[in-house]
Amino acid sequence: MRIPLERSGKVPLYAQIANFLRAAILSGKLPSQTRMPSARRLAGDLGISRMTVEAAYAALEAEGLVRREMGSGTFVMARRHSPASVRVNVPEIWPQWQHELVANCASWHEGAMVDAPAPLRAENAIAFGSGTGDARRFPLADFRTVMRSVLQRDGKEALEYGETCGYAPLRRTISELLSVHGLQAGADDVLVTSGSQQGLALVAQLLLRPGDSVVVERPTYAAALPLFRAMAARIVDVPVDREGMRVDLLDKALQRYHPRLIYTIPNFQNPTGVCMSAGRRRSVVALAERYGVAVLEDDFVGDLRYGGRAQPPLKALDRTGGIIYVSTFSKMLMPGVRVGFIHADGPVLELLAGLKRLTDLATSSALQRALHRYVSIGRYDAHLRRARRLYATRRDTMARALERYFPPGSEFDLAEGGLFLWVALPRGYVTSELLRPAWKAGVGFAPGEEFFVDRSSGDRFLRLNFAAVTPEEIERGIRNLGRVIAESSQ
Amino acid sequence: MRIPLERSGKVPLYAQIANFLRAAILSGKLPSQTRMPSARRLAGDLGISRMTVEAAYAALEAEGLVRREMGSGTFVMARRHSPASVRVNVPEIWPQWQHELVANCASWHEGAMVDAPAPLRAENAIAFGSGTGDARRFPLADFRTVMRSVLQRDGKEALEYGETCGYAPLRRTISELLSVHGLQAGADDVLVTSGSQQGLALVAQLLLRPGDSVVVERPTYAAALPLFRAMAARIVDVPVDREGMRVDLLDKALQRYHPRLIYTIPNFQNPTGVCMSAGRRRSVVALAERYGVAVLEDDFVGDLRYGGRAQPPLKALDRTGGIIYVSTFSKMLMPGVRVGFIHADGPVLELLAGLKRLTDLATSSALQRALHRYVSIGRYDAHLRRARRLYATRRDTMARALERYFPPGSEFDLAEGGLFLWVALPRGYVTSELLRPAWKAGVGFAPGEEFFVDRSSGDRFLRLNFAAVTPEEIERGIRNLGRVIAESSQ
Repeated sequence: MRIPLERSGKVPLYAQIANFLRAAILSGKLPSQTRMPSARRLAGDLGISRMTVEAAYAALEAEGLVRREMGSGTFVMARRHSPASVRVNVPEIWPQWQHELVANCASWHEGAMVDAPAPLRAENAIAFGSGTGDARRFPLADFRTVMRSVLQRDGKEALEYGETCGYAPLRRTISELLSVHGLQAGADDVLVTSGSQQGLALVAQLLLRPGDSVVVERPTYAAALPLFRAMAARIVDVPVDREGMRVDLLDKALQRYHPRLIYTIPNFQNPTGVCMSAGRRRSVVALAERYGVAVLEDDFVGDLRYGGRAQPPLKALDRTGGIIYVSTFSKMLMPGVRVGFIHADGPVLELLAGLKRLTDLATSSALQRALHRYVSIGRYDAHLRRARRLYATRRDTMARALERYFPPGSEFDLAEGGLFLWVALPRGYVTSELLRPAWKAGVGFAPGEEFFVDRSSGDRFLRLNFAAVTPEEIERGIRNLGRVIAESSQ
Repeated sequence: MRIPLERSGKVPLYAQIANFLRAAILSGKLPSQTRMPSARRLAGDLGISRMTVEAAYAALEAEGLVRREMGSGTFVMARRHSPASVRVNVPEIWPQWQHELVANCASWHEGAMVDAPAPLRAENAIAFGSGTGDARRFPLADFRTVMRSVLQRDGKEALEYGETCGYAPLRRTISELLSVHGLQAGADDVLVTSGSQQGLALVAQLLLRPGDSVVVERPTYAAALPLFRAMAARIVDVPVDREGMRVDLLDKALQRYHPRLIYTIPNFQNPTGVCMSAGRRRSVVALAERYGVAVLEDDFVGDLRYGGRAQPPLKALDRTGGIIYVSTFSKMLMPGVRVGFIHADGPVLELLAGLKRLTDLATSSALQRALHRYVSIGRYDAHLRRARRLYATRRDTMARALERYFPPGSEFDLAEGGLFLWVALPRGYVTSELLRPAWKAGVGFAPGEEFFVDRSSGDRFLRLNFAAVTPEEIERGIRNLGRVIAESSQ
């Protein structure tokens, strides 16, 4: 079933679906006793979440237009029942507060979609859409060893609640890792989180109240957008060029919108791969100080540099406690371990820790201890060095493949680090429309629209992960993708 | 230094401290160059968080009344500097937005205090204040074994991001465990969380908007109060008697406050240990349905029953999808593993999963797999049976010790399950004042005030964990505690 959907429109998706189906039922296009597609299937066809379809069906059922029979499906009702008379007899499946929630959460829920479409998860698909390093290189054997030795060494303590702020030796280790980047953080200035996503979420939850503005880069990390929307924040996006966020436009945005927070990814930005210049870094810090705005610095892959000059984190330029620094071990190490951290100065750190405690008490003590041991026996450094060499080669391999197989007029810059190349196709392409044919050709990627507040601005773009894939996969995958692109324009 | 604090007052604690010290400085009681106690020490003396003291010092510094010297301390400034003239020269240490945050978060932050006072964490203290089962009985060797075999069996998948909803086989296992309690939950109706605390937090974050009312039991789980306060919710408490929440008063509260949410712990309530009667359960479900209010059912130790009749979870009586059920493996198994779950019907479950994804992407895949294996090879059931026998004996031991060593007129009921006895001392005692002498006597406990919105209503009460301690510890600890109580009334 094909239902036209306006994704950036003001009408929630579930209501659009219900409206479409209502019209079809009332007009007789969907006759009585027609069996509707299952919510799961329709969701798959439309590329939306099952919940959204369920909500549409529930609304139609409440109106007496369809009935749902447990185990056999959803059917169009005979038209002799007027909606009003049926409403009495057919209870709404979900209570009213659930319907209200669905409407209230429409702004962010699709962006937080829970299950990646099956093709993306297929074992043999080439994972250009991935957000992490190469899972096949994760240090599994090492992890097994450190986990075993930690459980032997620490006994029951490894299975008790740990401190909310994090396992103290791990916090010391993190403070040592940070000193390499020029950050003077003591162990007490570090809060361990369940991945950097939790770091972002805690900051958003603590700082943003409904109606507050937040500045993001344009484009930006896809999952940051629904996060800020879930806080009912107003998102102001400031373009990124080859030097990073445009500080002239940032200045104007700060004057105009008085935001509570600036969210930036200065190193190997997600999705563009851009590394913010030294001058821009100083300017962002100075502007934030001048306007009294907090900065959330997301350094998700700062350790993965393959060329160019290392720049100081914004946090290293922070004289007043205005910058909250978030990072993680997940991207290149073991995402399933879910350990990241926040470094901040001033009362805000303890408030974040308090909120963390209310949110999940603490990050798993066993995992923190295993990670601490892994880092402290030197495995992390060694793994990082290997990963840098490996990923740099893969980046170059992908760049060559792109020049060979992608249509003339495609553009990209060679990222100095990180995981991604950000490619612009010539005007006229809509990468989200290439997703399904690409999956069929055994290739995944991240379509540009995910990274823009105004989704259609991302139509030409796609984000390709070069780190999670082998050179052979890059060669084959980019070739297949080039073919999909070529065929789409015929 | 002794500073009188009004804990339930409207003036934030940090402002009370700053006010007290300002008066002392301006009056000359604290002369110029006086070295102030370190924030850490003053916080310890006052039994508050270090951040609160830091905030007070920062405010005084901003006013030019003290100066802070890195590494050497905080000193009273010479009075010839008038506050106004100094303000220009001495920058505030933290930006204004941090000061505002401290004020905004005053309502919940003390309740989310991050570090338990050191004595509570002392190795040899008798842990009547604990919120979990006996750490010395946690199945450490089993956990080591299952973790090893999972990492061997699943390889890199155990270290990748898992599905946001949780590891599918674990969700199936949970649905089987739930069926024992009469809950017909499919695996798709379960969302794995990082402990039940995350379950509570996700529900609160999703449902509550600033100004919404939420009904809690009186008394209730201590960490629920700051959680709801952090959402800027209005808390309405409904008394618990020997049958659970007073449904007559619940009815009135629903009529009067139109809350968005009812939070209840029907089984072996925290802190009272009360098991809600069958009639009350039906009434709560019916009232929630009638008024269209969501119910958050916290079943944190439903598996730990030592006597009496099992009652169905509220969720088993739910015909409309109005009840959200939250539980955990933490309390009796391995708190450091941080795995709990939510069971709900309708769109709300997918919204919770979406929020979970924004909050921390997913709970550690490795831990979920280890836990799944532990349960599926039958170890969980065996552990649970052992724990029930063990804890039942300890409960009886504690009851006998209380009758022997506590002052005449003390009251408690024998909880039919769970972890706690809830003891009322005769009128006149204030248990929070007994905490420090008890620590000195090597005993911890949870003072009643933590569990009440209006803290002073808990003055007579204390919550004692009988499960985390051996019979010898119970005998010695209750005897010592009885002595501390007796000495306090002299």
